Amino acid sequence: MNCIFGIDIGGTEIKIGKFYQDKLVLKTSIRTDVSNNGVNIFPDIFTKIEELLDGDQLLGIGVGVPGPVVKGVVRGAQNLGWGNVEAEKLLQEHYPGIIVRVINDANAAAIGEMAIGSARRFRNFVFVTLGTGIGGGVVINGELYEGFTGSAGEIGHLPVATGKKRLCNCGLYDCHERYASATGLVYSAEEMRKGKKTILNDIELNAKNIFDAAKAGDEVALAAVDFMVEKMAIALSTVAATINPEAFVIGGGVSKAGDFLLTKIRRKFQELCFMELRGTEFVLASLGNDAGIYGAAYEIRKRMEA
Amino acid sequence: MNCIFGIDIGGTEIKIGKFYQDKLVLKTSIRTDVSNNGVNIFPDIFTKIEELLDGDQLLGIGVGVPGPVVKGVVRGAQNLGWGNVEAEKLLQEHYPGIIVRVINDANAAAIGEMAIGSARRFRNFVFVTLGTGIGGGVVINGELYEGFTGSAGEIGHLPVATGKKRLCNCGLYDCHERYASATGLVYSAEEMRKGKKTILNDIELNAKNIFDAAKAGDEVALAAVDFMVEKMAIALSTVAATINPEAFVIGGGVSKAGDFLLTKIRRKFQELCFMELRGTEFVLASLGNDAGIYGAAYEIRKRMEA
Repeated sequence: MNCIFGIDIGGTEIKIGKFYQDKLVLKTSIRTDVSNNGVNIFPDIFTKIEELLDGDQLLGIGVGVPGPVVKGVVRGAQNLGWGNVEAEKLLQEHYPGIIVRVINDANAAAIGEMAIGSARRFRNFVFVTLGTGIGGGVVINGELYEGFTGSAGEIGHLPVATGKKRLCNCGLYDCHERYASATGLVYSAEEMRKGKKTILNDIELNAKNIFDAAKAGDEVALAAVDFMVEKMAIALSTVAATINPEAFVIGGGVSKAGDFLLTKIRRKFQELCFMELRGTEFVLASLGNDAGIYGAAYEIRKRMEA
Repeated sequence: MNCIFGIDIGGTEIKIGKFYQDKLVLKTSIRTDVSNNGVNIFPDIFTKIEELLDGDQLLGIGVGVPGPVVKGVVRGAQNLGWGNVEAEKLLQEHYPGIIVRVINDANAAAIGEMAIGSARRFRNFVFVTLGTGIGGGVVINGELYEGFTGSAGEIGHLPVATGKKRLCNCGLYDCHERYASATGLVYSAEEMRKGKKTILNDIELNAKNIFDAAKAGDEVALAAVDFMVEKMAIALSTVAATINPEAFVIGGGVSKAGDFLLTKIRRKFQELCFMELRGTEFVLASLGNDAGIYGAAYEIRKRMEA
């Protein structure tokens, strides 16, 4: 049978999906070897693909990577130890004649949600991935929009405060992800719980526990969540005023907080956004960790049909 | 001869340009009659067009209006007294068979700059119009991007401060245009000059005078301009992190401050933006008040060629 692979390279594991047409028939993962500037990553992937091919005909490979990508060239992926890597060229050299496509991982997830997830009915939307950090993917007229240097959707690095309060890994202060990611939420809760009567003083501080405490009515946990939500609403209202999307699709680990979080974000967004943008929809992503491999595979199918 | 019209409807005057192909052969303007919710605006335009046609064959009319537009329907234009106005339908009913197009005025100016102005070499850029307020136009892959409800590029209404310091006409606080428009600059200068030794206490406070004082080295004027520039750099860094354009094209009355302003914006942007975006170009618009009629006419030509 003809098959394609959708691959999602993360800092700790590489997810690999094998597809017949749009059907995921096999899913596995391998450890990401980041030693020696990640030189083994592609060879390891090739080895695994050979194993999984199992007599099938390989038509294409789509890959999502954690860094900006312009025309198939990765422009640095810190978590993989990569500098500039000509990823599509590497794939093409190893498998001449097949269709290859390398895109940013948040972009791959955005496309995955559009292909078979909760963004199916949208042609213009922004995918927001809330995890340790915050990433984003911009879809315009049904097509991924990568930006001039591959940095469209870098919405984790919008400023949401003034006064240089929190330093970001990127070198700037007060980026969105310093406040509204899991890391940001824990940071806020840590500050807010001091000297207060709250469950937060008796539990391990992580995003799940803070949300659970908030849902149970703990006031300090609620304040921490509301602070996170306010910063996120500021960021998304700027995104909306720039490209006026039909919807925001919220994914990533923190989105497991579900409707409790979504309702708060929607309400705060409507309070803070420009009037004409109040109708912007908010939905939860539905593919979880598989969004990336679905999106990477979808990009290949689209090219096969073109 | 065959001709098309490019029209730019403003709150005080309506600019009308007659084109043979891409050549502007005649330019005039009429007063905007905003009485009775602006019902006379289109009839007045029709009367003027009849007069200007002068035996030529009318092939199309492009119009820019000061409000959000979705698929040719204006969704409110406060300065004209308009609520929802089916503008393309009105044009089409009056001139059956010709090509019509109605877009937002900042979008028309953006397209004009791309057609024959200083954005000619860009396919992905954001046009910023700095005047009494701040507007914007987003061009993606060489096409105007209007957004889901016509509000893409509403970059005058990005929040650039916290603490509810300045109330905006839109009902929100601390919008970009409260700080970085002519109005915002005058407001800041008014606050800053109090009790200070500065030229600003001896002159009429308007954007031009404040920039002239800043260029002459007046420290308070410089501080006011730098404050404006900082807020603008915050706003544009969020726009850039969202869609990663190749360039910002700066137009509108305040842009007459020229390279003095542009250099300051570029420098502050590079300081505040996400690292990957530092290469974003900044250029001054080159068509001045004519950008709108050029852009409106270009949209018609594009449709004729399609």
